[in-house]
Amino acid sequence: MTIAHARPVDLAAIRAQVDLALEQFWQAKSGSDSELRLPEEVTATLHAFLFAGGKRIRPLLCVLGWLAADGDPEVPSPVVRTAASLEMFHASVLIHDDIIDASETRRDHPTVHRALAVRHRERPDPDRFGSSAAIILGDLAMVWSAELLHTARLSAAQLTSALTVIDAMRADVMYGQYLDLLTTAYPTSDLDRALEIIRFKTVSYTCERPLHLGAALADARPDVRAALSAYARPLGEAFQLRDDLLGVYGDPIETGKSNLEDLREGKHTALVALALQHASTAETTQLRTLLGNPELDADQAATCREILTGTAEPRVEEMIRTRWQQAMLALDHAPFPASVVEALRDVAAAAVARSR
Amino acid sequence: MTIAHARPVDLAAIRAQVDLALEQFWQAKSGSDSELRLPEEVTATLHAFLFAGGKRIRPLLCVLGWLAADGDPEVPSPVVRTAASLEMFHASVLIHDDIIDASETRRDHPTVHRALAVRHRERPDPDRFGSSAAIILGDLAMVWSAELLHTARLSAAQLTSALTVIDAMRADVMYGQYLDLLTTAYPTSDLDRALEIIRFKTVSYTCERPLHLGAALADARPDVRAALSAYARPLGEAFQLRDDLLGVYGDPIETGKSNLEDLREGKHTALVALALQHASTAETTQLRTLLGNPELDADQAATCREILTGTAEPRVEEMIRTRWQQAMLALDHAPFPASVVEALRDVAAAAVARSR
Repeated sequence: MTIAHARPVDLAAIRAQVDLALEQFWQAKSGSDSELRLPEEVTATLHAFLFAGGKRIRPLLCVLGWLAADGDPEVPSPVVRTAASLEMFHASVLIHDDIIDASETRRDHPTVHRALAVRHRERPDPDRFGSSAAIILGDLAMVWSAELLHTARLSAAQLTSALTVIDAMRADVMYGQYLDLLTTAYPTSDLDRALEIIRFKTVSYTCERPLHLGAALADARPDVRAALSAYARPLGEAFQLRDDLLGVYGDPIETGKSNLEDLREGKHTALVALALQHASTAETTQLRTLLGNPELDADQAATCREILTGTAEPRVEEMIRTRWQQAMLALDHAPFPASVVEALRDVAAAAVARSR
Repeated sequence: MTIAHARPVDLAAIRAQVDLALEQFWQAKSGSDSELRLPEEVTATLHAFLFAGGKRIRPLLCVLGWLAADGDPEVPSPVVRTAASLEMFHASVLIHDDIIDASETRRDHPTVHRALAVRHRERPDPDRFGSSAAIILGDLAMVWSAELLHTARLSAAQLTSALTVIDAMRADVMYGQYLDLLTTAYPTSDLDRALEIIRFKTVSYTCERPLHLGAALADARPDVRAALSAYARPLGEAFQLRDDLLGVYGDPIETGKSNLEDLREGKHTALVALALQHASTAETTQLRTLLGNPELDADQAATCREILTGTAEPRVEEMIRTRWQQAMLALDHAPFPASVVEALRDVAAAAVARSR
């Protein structure tokens, strides 16, 4: 452990560095776009989406993985840029996910497909245009996330190990998205299936792989990588379980998204699986009628919440608590600098907090 | 020029090698998917799409770029795998493009979103499910195309130069797709705009970058790269101009796609731009009424064709001829092995042929 590590990790400063890297990439693209006679809406729309908010959790974990593996606390620019590429990739996933879920808003702003439909409202079919344009912009964000990484000036060895982690991460989130889509509108009592989706979409994609990516850049020892997994796996589950609760019980003003959508879509979450395990016959019938009803109104949502609270919500809170404790226990034994352990505790606390 | 190069380039053998590389990748994925409890439809659907046809033009040009730069005529496996990654990327582009264009068939088979809608026809909204699932599968194909490249066992120097070409190529096709989308349903007499879309979507994405990718793997001299561009640029334009003609005049049985879709969508092609430049007032009014009408019937399509033939079709044929000659002239002076020149002539002839 070096002296420098004794300083606390400044998460806000890391976030600012990541944002700066994204902004610089944008500036370069905006310049070249006008040369190429490309419509300004391409860069402007992606920029507005990326800077409308977002906790930058994946870039933060990437940098923390670097620091956990004793990477230089003055985080070098190639590492910051690699971390930033994760945020750009995430923008791609969210843009496509919002089309799939037909979401109107994200982070209190119109989603990309909605914003583009409004921008082109004079067209014969603006909704279809918005979705089509958002498919392409999501693709472009994925392409640009790769470019951000490839131009990060990593060493050849760093690039090779980064690509291995990233290929696995990107495939995992697509598998998770597909499983999520398959089960949506068909919720069952299968808790394992719900946890499996979480493992792809959140454990791997949001927590474990970003940490491993940073660790790979620092050529981490196997025990460091194992300790990162021991922390990330329970934390990722806790994070998504909290997200599922917020999706149903959250205050839209605080979370920036509707608390009706998950119910209307009939998402197959751990919360719903547990409810279907423990509900009475009458409650099960009610849930099966209401969940996945795209017209679900506030009263019906309240009925759902009541049943979920009586059957499953405390169980999910208990699952979150257990997993949070496991993550904390993993940190107690982790071979990371003390300042990094502290930062990972802060990240975990924020991830499982009852408000966002 | 080596003795080995005196042998003609066997395009069919290269195509078979590329297909084998794709097939091997698939076998590996199918195995791991069942371990991961992933639905078999993910790999099966992508496999069916990729092997339903396709001329493998980008992989072929990639390998020809390698050979043009004096790469080993016994094409090494990393080069074949890199070429195969282009085809996987192309699958991603086509899957998303078919959603955008609401195409029902491609290569005489249902498009991916249609196939998945049919597979899940018992769902409340199978069409929406099909599009959503196809968005994710297109994303997965893009992720897998990157993995194919990253695991091709290229040298560090080869990987670095390949990534530079590929990043530019991938962004170019997205720009082209976006411009195409913006102008569709709003065709004008702006020929330059139509040629600009062609430059992104076909010249760069289909011809020049694939050739440069192969050349980069062989660490090509600047004069070789320049000669490849001199061939690729006119050829790419000719190729797309022919494709535009086939989209309107082609026999669906031969081309495997509808000859009504471009008219119904109101695609802004060079053919239409020239027609709007040269049509009489009455013809212009007719074209403006008919193009972009999603209900266009066979009689109305015949009227469109008649106007297009009288105003623009011979001009487009002339543009194709000029560009084909330019490409041939570029080959006359190109510093490539003679066998490669011959193969590039064959590719060009196929690209501009009046039937496919």
